[in-house]
Amino acid sequence: MLKYEKIAQKIYRYITDHQLQQGDKLPSLDELTNNFLVSKNTVIKALEMMEKQGLIYQVRGSGIFVRQPRRKGYINLMDLQGFNSSLREFDLNSQVLALDLIPANEELCRNLDLAPGDPVYYVNRVRYIEGRPFCIEASYFPQKLVPYLSEEIATSSLFSYLRQGLGLDIHYVDHFMRARRLHPEEAKHLQLKSGDPTIVIESNYYLADGMPVDFSKICYHYNETQFFSQGEMTSPIFLD
Amino acid sequence: MLKYEKIAQKIYRYITDHQLQQGDKLPSLDELTNNFLVSKNTVIKALEMMEKQGLIYQVRGSGIFVRQPRRKGYINLMDLQGFNSSLREFDLNSQVLALDLIPANEELCRNLDLAPGDPVYYVNRVRYIEGRPFCIEASYFPQKLVPYLSEEIATSSLFSYLRQGLGLDIHYVDHFMRARRLHPEEAKHLQLKSGDPTIVIESNYYLADGMPVDFSKICYHYNETQFFSQGEMTSPIFLD
Repeated sequence: MLKYEKIAQKIYRYITDHQLQQGDKLPSLDELTNNFLVSKNTVIKALEMMEKQGLIYQVRGSGIFVRQPRRKGYINLMDLQGFNSSLREFDLNSQVLALDLIPANEELCRNLDLAPGDPVYYVNRVRYIEGRPFCIEASYFPQKLVPYLSEEIATSSLFSYLRQGLGLDIHYVDHFMRARRLHPEEAKHLQLKSGDPTIVIESNYYLADGMPVDFSKICYHYNETQFFSQGEMTSPIFLD
Repeated sequence: MLKYEKIAQKIYRYITDHQLQQGDKLPSLDELTNNFLVSKNTVIKALEMMEKQGLIYQVRGSGIFVRQPRRKGYINLMDLQGFNSSLREFDLNSQVLALDLIPANEELCRNLDLAPGDPVYYVNRVRYIEGRPFCIEASYFPQKLVPYLSEEIATSSLFSYLRQGLGLDIHYVDHFMRARRLHPEEAKHLQLKSGDPTIVIESNYYLADGMPVDFSKICYHYNETQFFSQGEMTSPIFLD
């Protein structure tokens, strides 16, 4: 763990130890620097990281404040690890429906920066929370980045495999969401009725160098899943 | 506009002028500092802001990269201005269904930090995009922060009124999303069928000092709306 991560961890512990709530003020940058006996730069880096994670917010000239969303059990869309991290207190399982090496079609070329016909690993899984189905996930990985996948790997965390097994540095993700009706096949896997509502999320995952490494389409059980995201005031300068 | 906002604007113009794509590299921090003849700190602030807005990403030791989500027409949940900004190329209208001063119930007390019975402005609107209904929005504002609202105000942008009319510094927002079926009354307003799918987003808007200023519940037309959000790799240190 890097020095600023350790400091971030200490600041987070301060928040939980003092049971600080949404909007409560934290010690100033100078006070934090003095308390932790590290450079101001290290504290600034720690605060930046915590701000990105939605744990604090900083108001120039006013201070550093706690940001604690009030609801639990929501899948955090801002956290790349998605439900593995948001739902970590629950028992998660996967059933692999399909695992194939397929040629990239037009949709995959567009989402994974591939040429037509490039080989792509396709994994289709039903995922279970506490034994109940909560989503159907189709994931696509370019074989040039993910040279090998097996059903055994797909049964546990693909993310851990990409990161720990293959050393891929997955860095950020774009999510595109909409609602629609479930198709009959999807409904069967989710133990719902055809035509029931679902939230569908298409996600593009990127490596640190901007290369797409995973394109996924997940349709969620509408009664088992809810999502969290945060927004900020942005300056109007990018409105064109 | 502040100096770093101007620099951010220039960097953004550089991206669009050079038609840079997702993953393309920007000039280094030193190069940007030299080009714009400003202090390194100003450029750092500009880059920070652009990173928050999802326009670039920075990889320590590697560089600054363009981040351009590939799809247009999605409501950006990370932008506090929501659809007013995401859908700005479209013609937006509102029909006010109700405007009342009501006593805070348990749900409003919880979401707006109020005591039971505190007065709250309740506004219920159908919103139209190019003449087609795309959402039903129920918004709640504590009267202590929003002393006056009228149907005329509610017909145009409430956000502009809060910011420009009342000088409220709305700073960030938490969104909570799920899918469900439309109720008959909602379906009528959205010109859909009862039981059709909808995405429902509950949002808490906060002032810079952490005080809640707006609680809203919006149910969206599933064929007219789609949403965008981004995630980042977070360090595992906050996982408990």
